[in-house]
Amino acid sequence: MRQAGRSLPEYRRVRAGVGMLESCRTPELVTEITLQPVRRYGVDAAIFFSDIVVPLAAVGVGVEIRPGVGPVIDQPFRTAADLDRLPDLHAEQIPDIGESVRLLVAELGPTPLIGFAGAPFTLASYLVEGGPSRDLVRTKALMYGDPPLWAALLERLARISAAFLTVQIAAGARAVQLFDSWVGAVPAADYRRLVQPASAAALDAVHRAFPHVPRIHFGVGTGELLADIGAAGAEVVGVDFRIPLDEASRRIGPQHAVQGNLDPALLFAPWEVLAQRVRDTVEAGRRTPGHVFNLGHGVPPTADPDVLARVVDLVHSL
Amino acid sequence: MRQAGRSLPEYRRVRAGVGMLESCRTPELVTEITLQPVRRYGVDAAIFFSDIVVPLAAVGVGVEIRPGVGPVIDQPFRTAADLDRLPDLHAEQIPDIGESVRLLVAELGPTPLIGFAGAPFTLASYLVEGGPSRDLVRTKALMYGDPPLWAALLERLARISAAFLTVQIAAGARAVQLFDSWVGAVPAADYRRLVQPASAAALDAVHRAFPHVPRIHFGVGTGELLADIGAAGAEVVGVDFRIPLDEASRRIGPQHAVQGNLDPALLFAPWEVLAQRVRDTVEAGRRTPGHVFNLGHGVPPTADPDVLARVVDLVHSL
Repeated sequence: MRQAGRSLPEYRRVRAGVGMLESCRTPELVTEITLQPVRRYGVDAAIFFSDIVVPLAAVGVGVEIRPGVGPVIDQPFRTAADLDRLPDLHAEQIPDIGESVRLLVAELGPTPLIGFAGAPFTLASYLVEGGPSRDLVRTKALMYGDPPLWAALLERLARISAAFLTVQIAAGARAVQLFDSWVGAVPAADYRRLVQPASAAALDAVHRAFPHVPRIHFGVGTGELLADIGAAGAEVVGVDFRIPLDEASRRIGPQHAVQGNLDPALLFAPWEVLAQRVRDTVEAGRRTPGHVFNLGHGVPPTADPDVLARVVDLVHSL
Repeated sequence: MRQAGRSLPEYRRVRAGVGMLESCRTPELVTEITLQPVRRYGVDAAIFFSDIVVPLAAVGVGVEIRPGVGPVIDQPFRTAADLDRLPDLHAEQIPDIGESVRLLVAELGPTPLIGFAGAPFTLASYLVEGGPSRDLVRTKALMYGDPPLWAALLERLARISAAFLTVQIAAGARAVQLFDSWVGAVPAADYRRLVQPASAAALDAVHRAFPHVPRIHFGVGTGELLADIGAAGAEVVGVDFRIPLDEASRRIGPQHAVQGNLDPALLFAPWEVLAQRVRDTVEAGRRTPGHVFNLGHGVPPTADPDVLARVVDLVHSL
């Protein structure tokens, strides 16, 4: 459950007065924040605390994360000249990330750590828009209007995503998640031609470096894209709550496990309603080739930690 | 093309210093704003300029539309007692709406006017959240947590939506559009049980009053819902750009025409790219039982009116 922290008082305590990017680059904080939901809920894996723009900042992109807004890029990406501002990411630029992972793995013991990185499309959307955007108009204008520049941009971002993940694996992460938050805004035919090659390249680079590490690939609102997202190569495809889990699995194909997809809004429903939907999700998962129980989107900041704890216990009891 | 106004200098001129709700309740302004894109583009129909919360304000709900934010509700809807604040909407409460339509119909001549209203789910989401929301957590908590209260709320809103549309038809609108902006956030099984009955009731009330007036029903991100949205009864189902038009039509069923679905982001692509996608959309539409060309979402505020004019001309030439 990504973003489980936001709803935890102990998270808000350690983050008080500390900027988002600073928290992501301070090993003691990353370790503490990543561990918090594991401690509280006893979930079966930890997900590395980071922000999608951390690797961009690491290669020198000027970016700040404004509270209540999100990432804001100093000089948005607009022309071929901007490619020069996206050099490869090398492990030496992010010693703190390896350090955070090593601290975490030591603390986690048998509980596996899942590494985390943003996918090329979503990284590109922040770079091109200059910040969060409702309609991704500039991103798509570049994608539709200048496919060679777009491809060059995504190719660089794929290398950056892959490098960010392999650093985490080298330090001890036992699985990775490639997170494509906004890709659901792309029509399927365009996804296949203009986005999937870069996601596949990132996933493939990870696989070539570490063939035995399972890869999870998640996006929101991806109903129409699932077959193509599956074909991008991850062992596990995460899906949101908009699509029944078994139908999602049918689209993704039998080579892949699915992850998801309880609607986070159900955390605010009466327990009997929520419990039934948890059971339904587990049941639907049993009709797939493999299922990782998860929410179908991030944990809402107003979620009650005690309710999340009951959900985890219920899943474990089933 | 809803929200065509936002990108027009003549729209920004007449709106300068005038609040959104005030513009929607001033017949001379509604007429002028509705006519502006018709004048500029020579489109085949006009869409009534209004805001989704206008009928709520008309029955007495305290609501203001804050620039850059959206509708903000004074006292959000939370309990059964709030139902009393949602009485039926009567034509006498909105004499200006009938007046606007009559002025418009006189000006439009042979060009038909499409009436407009928000659908019950989307109206409920504003009432319950108290304003725009990313995840609709409170709305869904009520929907999942208290189905009888939710049903009572949606039933009232269905009557309000239907009344708002029938006033427009009685004054001369020749088709209507029921707009369900946020319904794409509801999983299909829940839509069928908890949302569709109210949308169907609104559409049915319109049909019983005016059996020959075609009804258009639109939502964003509705790929998984299309069969059920079709079954709600509208003659035409609008779809966004996330799904190919012919696949959408297959899901909606052969009794319905489809409306859509050019990605508005393509308006920012080079003309050759855009023109090809316009042709593709018209071609895909020809493979359906009936097609109304439209964008797959509102017109972005930064769209170039000259580009929109070329798109309309191209569609007319095909």
